[in-house]
This record gives sequence, structure tokens and C-alpha cells, in this order.
Amino acid sequence: MDFSSKLLENAVYEVSQLPGIGKRTALRLVLHLLKQPERRTDDLATSLVDLRGKIQFCENCHNIADTVLCEICANPKRDDSLVCVVEDIRDVMAIENTGQFRGKYHVLGGKISPMEGVGPQNLKIGSLVEKVKEGVIKELIFALSSTMEGDTTNFYIFRQLEGINVKTSTIARGIAVGDELEYADEVTLGRSILNRVPFEGSLRQD
Amino acid sequence: MDFSSKLLENAVYEVSQLPGIGKRTALRLVLHLLKQPERRTDDLATSLVDLRGKIQFCENCHNIADTVLCEICANPKRDDSLVCVVEDIRDVMAIENTGQFRGKYHVLGGKISPMEGVGPQNLKIGSLVEKVKEGVIKELIFALSSTMEGDTTNFYIFRQLEGINVKTSTIARGIAVGDELEYADEVTLGRSILNRVPFEGSLRQD
Repeated sequence: MDFSSKLLENAVYEVSQLPGIGKRTALRLVLHLLKQPERRTDDLATSLVDLRGKIQFCENCHNIADTVLCEICANPKRDDSLVCVVEDIRDVMAIENTGQFRGKYHVLGGKISPMEGVGPQNLKIGSLVEKVKEGVIKELIFALSSTMEGDTTNFYIFRQLEGINVKTSTIARGIAVGDELEYADEVTLGRSILNRVPFEGSLRQD
Repeated sequence: MDFSSKLLENAVYEVSQLPGIGKRTALRLVLHLLKQPERRTDDLATSLVDLRGKIQFCENCHNIADTVLCEICANPKRDDSLVCVVEDIRDVMAIENTGQFRGKYHVLGGKISPMEGVGPQNLKIGSLVEKVKEGVIKELIFALSSTMEGDTTNFYIFRQLEGINVKTSTIARGIAVGDELEYADEVTLGRSILNRVPFEGSLRQD
């Protein structure tokens, strides 16, 4: 694209570096900002710079927080002995939305992915193993996505915990509530049969 | 969505104010920035603030430019007597890419749209009429989109020019090059028959 202005070209380039945003979308977003009051752009820029510069991570679970300990870790009503291992803050938000989990979290910050250059040393695995060694945690729930990277990460952590007395579990895979059996993929349907639960258990709504 | 951090919530809110970007996409973009070096965020923020603060518009055609006159208006080889009326810079870029237009542009900055609160006074129509009155312009080409708003804008300008000796034309509507007749809509196909061109003319590749 040939731009009539270096400033415009530069802004479009920077916006198009964001994932999933191409040059055309970037141009549309930038032209939108030009039509808005200048304060909108300033607010946007300030919020991003503030976030990037002042962001803190909870020193216990490594979730994004504004304080040293996040709200969940600081809450004495949450169960210290049950820890859910997740990839990032979006997973924490999704699980919190269910209202079904009363334990704490451990945010890894990603999955082991040699393709993207992410190794175990780039994730918060060491601190998880340390925490488990302290003996407070009774059960770890692996809630990573069921991709090759997720499975690799689960298995890596599992191996690191060998010899430590802690229960490990993984979230149930199965047919989604409300889904039709005929449209489910074989792996999911197979797992939902293998890991069937007692009928009374399925009625639980705690 | 419940965020564990005010900074994060604020950044996601600001990003989600952009058109076509919802809360989930905004969160994804913001988390991406958090994983990148801090300089990426600074560059992005600076480019946007710079653009918004220092942007200039060509004083002749109102296109975005870094100088008082844009490159096209400052180019003595372009034809002063032929002016193409477009909505915004994207249309200028699209027409420039064809390499078929040697005249100049007039960028209105939008279309008349009562629904969005855009009236003639919000567009650069007055300065266009003034320019035409100076007598240098021989032909105006309306190249607005063929929507109700575009047609309204064309017609409004046309009425403003009543009594002034200037030729007005509009870009040809018809079947796109390479398209199949059977899939064309009736209006387009009808227009392409009504406004048929001499066969020799259609071979022109100037």
C-alpha cells in the first residue's frame, strides 16, 4: 500500500503488527481514531503504556494483578489445598465464571511449544513444583487445552512431581452440555464413555 | 467479564472501543502486547498519538498528508482540470493503484448520512464548490460508493453546482472484469447493458 503520509504509514504498520490484524483492518482502525476526538487516542495509548509499564503478577499464582497477591490468592475462604493449573488469565476468568471452583490457581503463562520457542524454563513450572513440595497442596487439577502442547506440558509437570505425594487430576473431557451425540467427534465421545460418571453424580449442582 | 486488574480492565475497555473489536478480541490483543517487549507497546502508542496530534490534511484536496500540499496536488504533471470526488483516503489509494487516473482528487471526508449525524456542513463540499467556481476544473468525476448515502451526496453536490459550467460524470457501474454474468445482480447487469461502451473502446489499455 502506498500511503500519502509517513505518520499514517507508521501507525498502520504498528497496528498491523497485532495478531489477526492485517494492513487493511489496521488502516480502518487508524482512520476511525482520526475521526474521533484526540482524547480517545490519548486514552487508548495511555492505557496500553500504563498496563505494559505497571503490570504486576501475583507472586503466588502469577496471575495478572494490581497488588502483590491477587484477590483469589488473598482470599482466606479459598481452598489452599486444591490448585488448578492453567495457561493464562483467560482460563482463570473462564473457570471463575462457572462459580464451581473454590480452590486456587497457578498460571503457567503458556504451554511448552518448541515450534514457538517456548520451553519449560519460560513457564512458571519451577515455582509450581516448589509450592507442591511445601506440602500444603493436596491436589493439582490440570486444566490446559487438550492440544499436543497442552498434553506435553501436563506430562512434563507430572514427571517433575514424581516422588512427591500429591494427587493429580485433569478436567473431564466429554460431550458439551446441550450438544447432540451425532455431531460429536469420536475422540470426545469415546472419552465421555470411558470416563462415565455415576448417574447420581451427574445430577450434582453444587 | 471480571478482571483481576484495573489496569488490564482499562486497557481492554479502550481497545474494545475500536470498531469491530469486542471484549474478547481486545483481551487477546492486550495479552499479546504483554508478552512482547515493552518497546512494542511504546512504539504502538507513540505512533498513534503522533498521528492523531500531528496529522495534516492537504489544503487543496483534504487528503491526509505530511505537507501543506499532498504529493498528488503538488505534482505538476497531474491534470488540474480533472477532479475525482471521493469519500476518504482509502478510495484515493484504490484509484491510485489502478494507475488509470492522471487528474487530481477531492476528499470529502465522508458521505451525507443523517443516520450517523453527518450533514453537508461536516464534509468538504463548500471548498469543492469554491474550487469549481474558480474555473480551472473542467470535469468532476463522482466516485462515491453506490449506496443511498453516496447517491445523496452526489446529488447534493450536483445541485450545488447548478449554473456553473462544469462537466460531471460518475464512475461506470457494471460487471466486474472476470465475473460471470449469471451471478451478477440485476441492477448491476441492467446498468452494464444500459451504459454499454463501443467495442473498440473496451479494448483501450491506456
